[in-house]
Amino acid sequence: MIIRKMIKPVYAHCDIPCGIYETDSMRHAAETCLRMIEKIEALGELDSQDKWNNFVRMVDIKEKHAQRVKDEAYILWSDYFKPEHLTRFPQLHDVFWRLAKQASIVKQTVDKAACEQLLHNVTEADTLFTDSKK
Amino acid sequence: MIIRKMIKPVYAHCDIPCGIYETDSMRHAAETCLRMIEKIEALGELDSQDKWNNFVRMVDIKEKHAQRVKDEAYILWSDYFKPEHLTRFPQLHDVFWRLAKQASIVKQTVDKAACEQLLHNVTEADTLFTDSKK
Amino acid sequence: MIIRKMIKPVYAHCDIPCGIYETDSMRHAAETCLRMIEKIEALGELDSQDKWNNFVRMVDIKEKHAQRVKDEAYILWSDYFKPEHLTRFPQLHDVFWRLAKQASIVKQTVDKAACEQLLHNVTEADTLFTDSKK
Amino acid sequence: MIIRKMIKPVYAHCDIPCGIYETDSMRHAAETCLRMIEKIEALGELDSQDKWNNFVRMVDIKEKHAQRVKDEAYILWSDYFKPEHLTRFPQLHDVFWRLAKQASIVKQTVDKAACEQLLHNVTEADTLFTDSKK
Amino acid sequence: MIIRKMIKPVYAHCDIPCGIYETDSMRHAAETCLRMIEKIEALGELDSQDKWNNFVRMVDIKEKHAQRVKDEAYILWSDYFKPEHLTRFPQLHDVFWRLAKQASIVKQTVDKAACEQLLHNVTEADTLFTDSKK
Amino acid sequence: MIIRKMIKPVYAHCDIPCGIYETDSMRHAAETCLRMIEKIEALGELDSQDKWNNFVRMVDIKEKHAQRVKDEAYILWSDYFKPEHLTRFPQLHDVFWRLAKQASIVKQTVDKAACEQLLHNVTEADTLFTDSKK
Repeated sequence: MIIRKMIKPVYAHCDIPCGIYETDSMRHAAETCLRMIEKIEALGELDSQDKWNNFVRMVDIKEKHAQRVKDEAYILWSDYFKPEHLTRFPQLHDVFWRLAKQASIVKQTVDKAACEQLLHNVTEADTLFTDSKK
Repeated sequence: MIIRKMIKPVYAHCDIPCGIYETDSMRHAAETCLRMIEKIEALGELDSQDKWNNFVRMVDIKEKHAQRVKDEAYILWSDYFKPEHLTRFPQLHDVFWRLAKQASIVKQTVDKAACEQLLHNVTEADTLFTDSKK
Repeated sequence: MIIRKMIKPVYAHCDIPCGIYETDSMRHAAETCLRMIEKIEALGELDSQDKWNNFVRMVDIKEKHAQRVKDEAYILWSDYFKPEHLTRFPQLHDVFWRLAKQASIVKQTVDKAACEQLLHNVTEADTLFTDSKK
Repeated sequence: MIIRKMIKPVYAHCDIPCGIYETDSMRHAAETCLRMIEKIEALGELDSQDKWNNFVRMVDIKEKHAQRVKDEAYILWSDYFKPEHLTRFPQLHDVFWRLAKQASIVKQTVDKAACEQLLHNVTEADTLFTDSKK
Repeated sequence: MIIRKMIKPVYAHCDIPCGIYETDSMRHAAETCLRMIEKIEALGELDSQDKWNNFVRMVDIKEKHAQRVKDEAYILWSDYFKPEHLTRFPQLHDVFWRLAKQASIVKQTVDKAACEQLLHNVTEADTLFTDSKK
Repeated sequence: MIIRKMIKPVYAHCDIPCGIYETDSMRHAAETCLRMIEKIEALGELDSQDKWNNFVRMVDIKEKHAQRVKDEAYILWSDYFKPEHLTRFPQLHDVFWRLAKQASIVKQTVDKAACEQLLHNVTEADTLFTDSKK
């Protein structure tokens, strides 16, 4: 397709402004979500203003870090990975799509299993990233 | 794959927190990039502090709106579109991937043609979005 | 008044950096507030951590979008509208003042009627905007 | 007008979430703009990467603080001031409108006189604020 | 130590980009925390969605302003104060460390005494700042 | 001192909301600053709008990541490290103070040596962090 051709030569320089890609940030963010869920569950009965205060704060921290997971995933997916990677890793789009969708689920629930699934998705993406550098 | 199955039933409720999806924001942001490029070009020779001041500001506005295009595209791609859409629109991933990559190019250059290409990509995504609602 | 005179000639160029004004963003933001109120009401009895989680998140989304309404209104009021518009539309200040104040009320309550009033105020502002372009 | 009536009783509680209004922030922000302009002028000929680096940073700081002036002005105008104030101070809208517009000019230029005018507008708004508490 | 020497001459110019330091912002932020705690306590029994709505919002406002206190404290500690101040005020690090830690406590609790302690810490820091200018 | 005693018992729970501390983010941010400086130097003569465009963007990215270094350093300094650590590591305050000050220098210059010094300071802080866990 002509559009593709037109922009293809630029792809090679696509990483000029950053060039530093890593998956630590994504993993730390996902782990923070898990920690928040554990802490929310550990609050037990919400029988004081202090507990409610921290419930609200933990939900907010979970939300922001689940978004962080998404943001880091988007950077890898659209900035780091190039058409030549897609040829080598045809599962690329699917891996990142499911990862982003799972992060949404972690936002919408207080569910350790959902967050462990997210960590699993992060590992999948991380493996792809590591393999792409070989 | 077992992972997919596990999270599939949740997909149906994936849009609980938002539910309001639109492509206006993405288009306005892309148009703002184009306007900034036109204004940068119209500055002519940068022979005063005022002109430099505005050059810096316009680059910054272009940067933020190109990022806005990406953010809006990611929301549609990962939050709005569901696996059933992918079956109907197998080009889904490709359309949004190229859109995000083109927005990066618009950040990295002062190039009307690159930005017109971005507007073209936005239209492609918009068409997909509109078709998905039929 | 001398101050006015001094800055008046600059008014004409006030829209140099943006030039793209629209009311879609304001309306989408107000509609998102309404949707959040409907969803909060639909939560029913808050008898699980998941429901509390989403209550907190929906309040936060409502808050941010009500602020978005205000931000978009301020941009139109102070950046787009010029002294010559005020002559044509003497109700200008009042329309935007009430709009901003109503957005505050939408933040402070979970009240569909208050939000429908806000949508009404958005329409008023939108009409003014459209008329100003005629 | 019926709309006005409907929302009027709520006005009295409009300040529930904040209640702490001040003009220090607005003034500090405007003074920061002035300082940035002085520093930009003091850079002299931009003959090194370090100078360009700081030119870009100073424009950015000026931009953010001019926006801060606007944000603080909007808070006072739409959150603090109530209809009863407007009766006492019919110039209210005009004072804040000109203040916001002048902050835009400070963004768009590197001009000490424009920024001194902004400080003058801030003083006007501050006087109104102080008088409203008497 | 050699590292210290190397960077010492630059310290003198460390305040080039800002130069405007003040403690008003820190104090206003701490006072906003106190106001939020008072308002949370005044909510009484949380027996309506409106009250829960405002509880969530007030916790969020408290959180942001406690962070603001920290941010302002960090700016003073690391940007304004220079090695020569440390010689004059050996308690410098301790004052700001305890201030930042107390702001964290204000985030984690709904406790007027903790916030009054924070205001006390702000006064300590303010005194140091004022004395440093003598 | 009585103030200290009063807040000391709370210190033990100070890490309730986070608990996940790491130095990866700080290091990645400092490395990004170095990369930006290298890229700025590699631009050579700024003889096109595209090059200026990227100069402005790189300065902005450097600025944000130098601030990120500071933010991560503040979190470790004031949230992670406790009074008992200070007893073990009397250089604690000094290490983080110099680190934050060096990050300011990296903002204010385009200087590889200054940024290499920052990476050195990050390593110092990292060593302290690692040792504190032994």
